[in-house]
Amino acid sequence: MQTRLTQMLGIEHPILSAPMAFAAGGKLAAAVSGAGGLGMIGGGYGDPSWLEQEFADAGSARVGCGFITWSLAQKPQLLELVLAHAPVGVMLSFGNLTSFARQIKATGTRLICQVQTLELAREAVAAGADVIVAQGAEAGGHGAVRATFTLVPELADYLSVAAPDTVLVAAGGIGDGRGLAAALMLGADGVLIGTRFLASTEALIAQSLQAAVLAADGDSTIRTRVVDIARRIEWPEAITGRVLKTRFTMDWHGREAKLSEPAILKHEEIRYRNALNAGDVDNASVFAGEAVGLIRDIAPAGDILHRIVRQAEDLLGRPANAPNSLPA
Amino acid sequence: MQTRLTQMLGIEHPILSAPMAFAAGGKLAAAVSGAGGLGMIGGGYGDPSWLEQEFADAGSARVGCGFITWSLAQKPQLLELVLAHAPVGVMLSFGNLTSFARQIKATGTRLICQVQTLELAREAVAAGADVIVAQGAEAGGHGAVRATFTLVPELADYLSVAAPDTVLVAAGGIGDGRGLAAALMLGADGVLIGTRFLASTEALIAQSLQAAVLAADGDSTIRTRVVDIARRIEWPEAITGRVLKTRFTMDWHGREAKLSEPAILKHEEIRYRNALNAGDVDNASVFAGEAVGLIRDIAPAGDILHRIVRQAEDLLGRPANAPNSLPA
Repeated sequence: MQTRLTQMLGIEHPILSAPMAFAAGGKLAAAVSGAGGLGMIGGGYGDPSWLEQEFADAGSARVGCGFITWSLAQKPQLLELVLAHAPVGVMLSFGNLTSFARQIKATGTRLICQVQTLELAREAVAAGADVIVAQGAEAGGHGAVRATFTLVPELADYLSVAAPDTVLVAAGGIGDGRGLAAALMLGADGVLIGTRFLASTEALIAQSLQAAVLAADGDSTIRTRVVDIARRIEWPEAITGRVLKTRFTMDWHGREAKLSEPAILKHEEIRYRNALNAGDVDNASVFAGEAVGLIRDIAPAGDILHRIVRQAEDLLGRPANAPNSLPA
Repeated sequence: MQTRLTQMLGIEHPILSAPMAFAAGGKLAAAVSGAGGLGMIGGGYGDPSWLEQEFADAGSARVGCGFITWSLAQKPQLLELVLAHAPVGVMLSFGNLTSFARQIKATGTRLICQVQTLELAREAVAAGADVIVAQGAEAGGHGAVRATFTLVPELADYLSVAAPDTVLVAAGGIGDGRGLAAALMLGADGVLIGTRFLASTEALIAQSLQAAVLAADGDSTIRTRVVDIARRIEWPEAITGRVLKTRFTMDWHGREAKLSEPAILKHEEIRYRNALNAGDVDNASVFAGEAVGLIRDIAPAGDILHRIVRQAEDLLGRPANAPNSLPA
């Protein structure tokens, strides 16, 4: 299924795996790339030795890497570390991207900017984005409020005028081939998938957390600041994280001020971290998107990707039927 | 474009217009039905003389009608009034539908249940829904939190097992043929469209409010309780209304407790209602969905519907390519 995205990135299928902090390591990225997509290592909150290890685990696979931009700004040397591995693309999300954008583009690595609004898309275009990822609020992990279903066609219209060579990727809510086919219909050139790959054998996640993802339906997630408060990670106020509605999450959601009180936070942070380390889902949480309700098994990432492509091709009749597809 | 929805309702195209309170009158419904969809009159908060007038304005067109279920429960005699007009379908949203469901089905009118979660879909199936409308949070007006992009495929999977004869309609975020094509890919048998028809010549809405809809982009809407508080309409707490981010809305959003103080509310209610009557958008608001960013003109509803169908058919290659489509 060739699109402008596959052409630009030199890949076979228009699927990127999300650079999920902690969970998206080199093995997952390599498996996704090996199956014809583009796997992305999660740069997360910036641990250089972790990053070196994960690039080593990716071996010779062509992969990308994603950063949380405001966090990268606190450790800007990490970008050089990553660029030294000549990734296919570097994805920036959540923060001022101007100076990093220049540095990335100067190396020939593709600049991938994840945005949550039309306003942020304008900034990404101004920064010279090669790829814009339109992330809807149904996505797992950090994000904002607009929905994939409207953000994608609106950005497609915007880009067709303002930056016709910038390609568009849909993110948020895509868990199977129906989502890929729908995203192409809405005007995307491909998709970025997180939660479905969290439920892969290569994801760096405890089995008990993965079991919770598998058991959850789409009503079982919520956007909240509770987990970031408990972890003492200072995200911008407007950015929330979509997580499973565990006991811990629901105990504190709506009582964020209370949780932030020093004495309580001291206790709850330890309790949260211990539970997470012990794989005790109820007293911790898992970042996951609304697409959890579409996940029926834990499988190798390559199998997951091929199933998604086959299902989308079936729905579209044949690959060349996809909007935005290129002649084979 | 024939689907299980068109077959069940005896219509030509798988498009329903939303029964928008106050705005969706008989002329809009008749125009949508006349173009091959199913137009729905907005039963709203229940004004019998308004309803009689709008059914009269619909003339001999085959139309449907939608109710806010908790409001209907306060004036249950309105259902008889509507059923006397032998509507094609009655849509129930937001509330306990058991007794009304029985009454509707006894007349041969189709029972259309709008749901916002998997849990509510289970209730709708138990009540014998002929059609389930999966409404995502991107929708204008009242709704909840789940997104169209994940709710539709998850409900399609659920219905395929639990109620294979119940047909599925996607609502929320659908503003053009891309949205219709995407909804079909996600597993819907058709779509319900609100905001795009609010921007039609037949909608019962002041021109200045319609101009605000036309001018808005998709970042310009918000889910809030502010408008319902100002109007003193007691919606269940979990249900918010998506409206344009007008000055009035943004002045009060996040300060709902203050707005609810009797002295303030007394003043603000009058100010809101006067502004609305005067067509002063800044000091009032307009219910509108994220699809506002896809709307480029005010046009006759029939033209809008035909454009949506043509664009979807183009994207799908040919009508029979649509998933869930029936042989012509």
